[in-house]
Amino acid sequence: MATGIWLAGGRGSVAVTSIVGATAIRAGLADTTGCVTELPQLRSPAFPAIGELVFGGHDPASIPLCKKAEALAVAGVIPARLVAALTEELATVEPEIRPVPAAATQLETAALIAEDISAFRYRHSLERVVVVNVSSTEPAPAAHPAHADADALRQALGEPGAVLPASSLYAYAAFISGCSYIDFTPSTGARLPALDALAHRHAVPYAGHDGKTGETLVKSVLAPMFAMRNLRVRTWSGTNLLGGGDGANLADPGANAAKATSKQRVLGETLGYEPQGNTRIEYVDDIGDFKTAWDLITFSGFLGTSMRMEFTWHGCDSALAAPLVLDLARLTAAAHKSGRSGPLTDLAFFFKDPLGSVPHSLAEQWALLASFVRGLADA
Amino acid sequence: MATGIWLAGGRGSVAVTSIVGATAIRAGLADTTGCVTELPQLRSPAFPAIGELVFGGHDPASIPLCKKAEALAVAGVIPARLVAALTEELATVEPEIRPVPAAATQLETAALIAEDISAFRYRHSLERVVVVNVSSTEPAPAAHPAHADADALRQALGEPGAVLPASSLYAYAAFISGCSYIDFTPSTGARLPALDALAHRHAVPYAGHDGKTGETLVKSVLAPMFAMRNLRVRTWSGTNLLGGGDGANLADPGANAAKATSKQRVLGETLGYEPQGNTRIEYVDDIGDFKTAWDLITFSGFLGTSMRMEFTWHGCDSALAAPLVLDLARLTAAAHKSGRSGPLTDLAFFFKDPLGSVPHSLAEQWALLASFVRGLADA
Amino acid sequence: MATGIWLAGGRGSVAVTSIVGATAIRAGLADTTGCVTELPQLRSPAFPAIGELVFGGHDPASIPLCKKAEALAVAGVIPARLVAALTEELATVEPEIRPVPAAATQLETAALIAEDISAFRYRHSLERVVVVNVSSTEPAPAAHPAHADADALRQALGEPGAVLPASSLYAYAAFISGCSYIDFTPSTGARLPALDALAHRHAVPYAGHDGKTGETLVKSVLAPMFAMRNLRVRTWSGTNLLGGGDGANLADPGANAAKATSKQRVLGETLGYEPQGNTRIEYVDDIGDFKTAWDLITFSGFLGTSMRMEFTWHGCDSALAAPLVLDLARLTAAAHKSGRSGPLTDLAFFFKDPLGSVPHSLAEQWALLASFVRGLADA
Amino acid sequence: MATGIWLAGGRGSVAVTSIVGATAIRAGLADTTGCVTELPQLRSPAFPAIGELVFGGHDPASIPLCKKAEALAVAGVIPARLVAALTEELATVEPEIRPVPAAATQLETAALIAEDISAFRYRHSLERVVVVNVSSTEPAPAAHPAHADADALRQALGEPGAVLPASSLYAYAAFISGCSYIDFTPSTGARLPALDALAHRHAVPYAGHDGKTGETLVKSVLAPMFAMRNLRVRTWSGTNLLGGGDGANLADPGANAAKATSKQRVLGETLGYEPQGNTRIEYVDDIGDFKTAWDLITFSGFLGTSMRMEFTWHGCDSALAAPLVLDLARLTAAAHKSGRSGPLTDLAFFFKDPLGSVPHSLAEQWALLASFVRGLADA
Repeated sequence: MATGIWLAGGRGSVAVTSIVGATAIRAGLADTTGCVTELPQLRSPAFPAIGELVFGGHDPASIPLCKKAEALAVAGVIPARLVAALTEELATVEPEIRPVPAAATQLETAALIAEDISAFRYRHSLERVVVVNVSSTEPAPAAHPAHADADALRQALGEPGAVLPASSLYAYAAFISGCSYIDFTPSTGARLPALDALAHRHAVPYAGHDGKTGETLVKSVLAPMFAMRNLRVRTWSGTNLLGGGDGANLADPGANAAKATSKQRVLGETLGYEPQGNTRIEYVDDIGDFKTAWDLITFSGFLGTSMRMEFTWHGCDSALAAPLVLDLARLTAAAHKSGRSGPLTDLAFFFKDPLGSVPHSLAEQWALLASFVRGLADA
Repeated sequence: MATGIWLAGGRGSVAVTSIVGATAIRAGLADTTGCVTELPQLRSPAFPAIGELVFGGHDPASIPLCKKAEALAVAGVIPARLVAALTEELATVEPEIRPVPAAATQLETAALIAEDISAFRYRHSLERVVVVNVSSTEPAPAAHPAHADADALRQALGEPGAVLPASSLYAYAAFISGCSYIDFTPSTGARLPALDALAHRHAVPYAGHDGKTGETLVKSVLAPMFAMRNLRVRTWSGTNLLGGGDGANLADPGANAAKATSKQRVLGETLGYEPQGNTRIEYVDDIGDFKTAWDLITFSGFLGTSMRMEFTWHGCDSALAAPLVLDLARLTAAAHKSGRSGPLTDLAFFFKDPLGSVPHSLAEQWALLASFVRGLADA
Repeated sequence: MATGIWLAGGRGSVAVTSIVGATAIRAGLADTTGCVTELPQLRSPAFPAIGELVFGGHDPASIPLCKKAEALAVAGVIPARLVAALTEELATVEPEIRPVPAAATQLETAALIAEDISAFRYRHSLERVVVVNVSSTEPAPAAHPAHADADALRQALGEPGAVLPASSLYAYAAFISGCSYIDFTPSTGARLPALDALAHRHAVPYAGHDGKTGETLVKSVLAPMFAMRNLRVRTWSGTNLLGGGDGANLADPGANAAKATSKQRVLGETLGYEPQGNTRIEYVDDIGDFKTAWDLITFSGFLGTSMRMEFTWHGCDSALAAPLVLDLARLTAAAHKSGRSGPLTDLAFFFKDPLGSVPHSLAEQWALLASFVRGLADA
Repeated sequence: MATGIWLAGGRGSVAVTSIVGATAIRAGLADTTGCVTELPQLRSPAFPAIGELVFGGHDPASIPLCKKAEALAVAGVIPARLVAALTEELATVEPEIRPVPAAATQLETAALIAEDISAFRYRHSLERVVVVNVSSTEPAPAAHPAHADADALRQALGEPGAVLPASSLYAYAAFISGCSYIDFTPSTGARLPALDALAHRHAVPYAGHDGKTGETLVKSVLAPMFAMRNLRVRTWSGTNLLGGGDGANLADPGANAAKATSKQRVLGETLGYEPQGNTRIEYVDDIGDFKTAWDLITFSGFLGTSMRMEFTWHGCDSALAAPLVLDLARLTAAAHKSGRSGPLTDLAFFFKDPLGSVPHSLAEQWALLASFVRGLADA
């Protein structure tokens, strides 16, 4: 029996790159570069095969998958030859990415979402479905007393008005459907006590937050380097220039703040102190999917000598994110199968702002991940 | 009883920065930033205190330590106020840095070196002495049959002509004096079967090669990052601009080749393949001690998407090296005391071109080091 | 007879670097690197000699010049040996940098300023005095009807309340004293119709705005390069990290906006269109006087091919500004002597936001300047 | 009557990009971005229209133009849609790019080259033909006494053996055919007294050397910036990483030396002194046509303060060169028509290593060019 991935934001760049990629790998047209779960050190029979993943999802946009894939090819994110070769396969997925349901109350909306997921599951005889949020970053939501308690939450959702942001409503719908949930964005997702309780009640695992694809990935190896050498980082200042849909969205101060906080967390937690400097995000339409990040790091060494390092990262966010979406879905499905529930803190390797009190050094996160995978295989 | 450090190249930038630093720490005028053995995770009662280290050495140059320290202050390597405050202390070390002995055969020269070290040891009632090579990088020496066997080596040294390069003759002299030996340079040092056998015969440990202070340090965390993310590094091309004495020396093609090989080794061993590109070293007098390295890395990710990263490292080599010299002396002295002999492969963390078949990822090297330090404390 | 420079902000970094520099040149302790008016192509007998310049000024701060100079030496802006050698000379200037006068109305304050300048002039038998604003950048002032007319302005100044920002009040005081005026900052200065009229009425010249010392200087040669090659600049995005007093001040959104606008003006005027991207200024205390600017430029060439350029500028603002202050004072004094009055648009070479409708390409500005200097010599 | 361009190296990247580009412009499928002669300030009725240029040439390779164009599209140099749209037009040019003739003596080879050019000219009723060398860079040739005199040269060419390198033999063939000649490479081309004499004898103009497309272009505006500001450049060190055919060729030490010398010339001539540092060229196959250059510049300013600038240039050499080939052909054809002969030193704007004693500052070169174009229009 196969495993399903239900993508909130199923027509966005990350989702479509994931779909094209998994389909290309199944067809033998692409290798698995970028997929962490395909490394010899991590490969495991506990994972569903990439070629057996089945895709569905919701998206408010109606652009056909093929058109979106062609646009991604023009932007240099995926090769045009793959899009041409996979037209039929994409047409098969096309009807599975449905409009976002809407109802009078959030409780009814959640029920409609759950219904779509269940129908998808039965349509494809799926063993289980992993719900993955790859939609646009939300501003931080207003606090609500019902966020603290699962039963109070159910009651509040039944009344008109928005109690949960969309990312959290998806987590809610996933949990009541018995599905695991992954938040690849900095949005709230499952990070509310009421939702955590619900995940445990339904015995499903969840993972997040905010896929670590570029500048923060580099920070998560450089900051430990300075720490291991007892060098004092004085300034760490970052500029991120990005275009594309997510860029425009992050130019919104609310979303920007959520992201920028998430991006600096690694420094304080790895170094043990906060260096000077901020992380800035600027939307530049012309940059498109190829984000450019520039970081300046000043540090002092022996006897106070001042030194500096700069780096420029020029990465394609969707191409970096998509294989991690496949990895996370495989890992979370296997964890679900093996009986894990609640937050999967051992998946910190994949996230800028990981769940739980975990190390932020990439090497330590790798060790956690490897041990987690061994645990799955033994189960 | 105190521990001695005998510096081959005792009037060079690294040596004098080490001496000024240890003296400043003893006097309470500087903190231990840059000293790895002072990190909470590694601190150990097995180490001699930095303040109790006693310095001596050899150098063909005759520049007074004070003058050299003043020049380093003008170059921005050490603060002028420290040099001013430590005039008396430096004057005390001054006579301990002696001219390099020379005799008719290398055997006699080694005996004179050993005599100087022994006299230093008894003069200061030192428990043990660590010999550290911080002199200029040598070209690769001609092979000699006597390099393979300790007894053949002893005999060959007794004849006129150069059998060993200077760095190896220091290792020889150290071992026959019962002293441990560290090679902080890419020179041959103790890396000859005859010298390894001698170290075991005299039950002394040795460590090396080539202190990892800048560009290679960064490589040792970035290369594993690409590997852990299953990203394919296609090009890794580095340019190193440096001035100062070592810069001029490395402009010599022979020395340059030794260094450049040492600097690329981390890539093949961490990635499992050799990306395109080389490491270049250019001598630019005006750059002085503040080396600038620029690296371009191109890599491909999911579905072959091309991406790139650049970094510039602007570090003061002597200020980065000096605390590691103190660290290595403390670690090697403690290892000697605890009965270790032969190559200390667990100290790979400190070297570009470490001894033995060891990991090149900084995080794995750190784990080796931490376990080594715990072993010393338990001993 | 000598020429005086009256510095509004006389104890700031730029002012003190200018004073130390001119004094060191007079004493034969420094050469004139950085002084444009000392280039063979521009040197002219029309200029007062650097060694004959006499300094005075106002500053709300009371830090002694010597202390400020020592702090600049520690920060690496000026050599410590110069400060040590010029203690006596700085002590002579010390009493000439006076507290900022304050009175019940701005008219009275202007009179006190004018009085201080006149006393300075007579005390040193100065042929003429150039007033230079090197004080902190002001936020954009509120519009006031009296800004449009010199007589209305005089009347409004006589009433309580602030009609003019400080930079403009200095221009007012300069003009009524028969002195020329230079604004080295992005503040309003003489850029009001009433003040322009006043300059003409008193037959004095003025110059400004905002000394072009770093990132904008580079833009003023790179933007014409793209234009001359018919390459289409798509994005020009700049990040400026700076510490020091001016950095803290520019972190204020009002001042920041003035500066950022001034810094982008060169692009639109040189390219003929506005590329995407902004200029950001971030205050990072640790960076100090050595500003780091990073710019990303993306452009398209033949058949639409996308290309990119990045640059990092790591310059000491005070060291770049100080010789230009001397240049501007010499040029403006010579212009005054030769009978020029009103805006000196031919000095655009020195400014980010030059007066008048002038070219922004550095090479064209150089041609204007050279012709201006020839005109002075002929006069 | 139309103008012909005869390309030595007609199937190389620069040649094919030029052909595709001119064809696309004629078909209205591309604009003239990158063409300097299309700027409003330079446009002139004296130039042949881009759409009326007719292409022919020689190349030892036999790859069809269409295949080469497709490869350039895959490499991102030209858009795939243009190649698809221009298949027919490229097929028309296909037979005009012929194999390189070879005969027993260079004199006979030159006659065969001249014959091909003449046949091309009559076949298309061309008013005139410009011969452009865009073939691979040659090593510096051995000196030969016949290089000094046109008659001696003719005689020497009649004997077996190579008297002239290929680039110079093309200049010879061009001149005896009454055609102008442009060397876009650092090869010798027309730079021999015998060839200069021949050009004058046949009353034809010639231009060169080495198209200024990237790093040197940037140098030619930055070096004057430092000079105009009286800042002392201490180090200028450049690294060029490039792949593609020319990259492999430049890895040859002989060709590399020619190129590197050509690239540093701008510094000495613009600054008036030689800063420290070299220009390095490294062949990295993976980089392809998109060259990456990194330059470090250190400079001192007022009172000796040390500062630095770095830039990275990531440009597509063929896309930068191709429009300049069209520009040069139009300018040289117009010059020929107006009666100019000998070296066209006013075209220095286009070259790294221009003919004659001319300014190396881009702005001054622009002024020369603009005045040259005005002269053509007046003629």
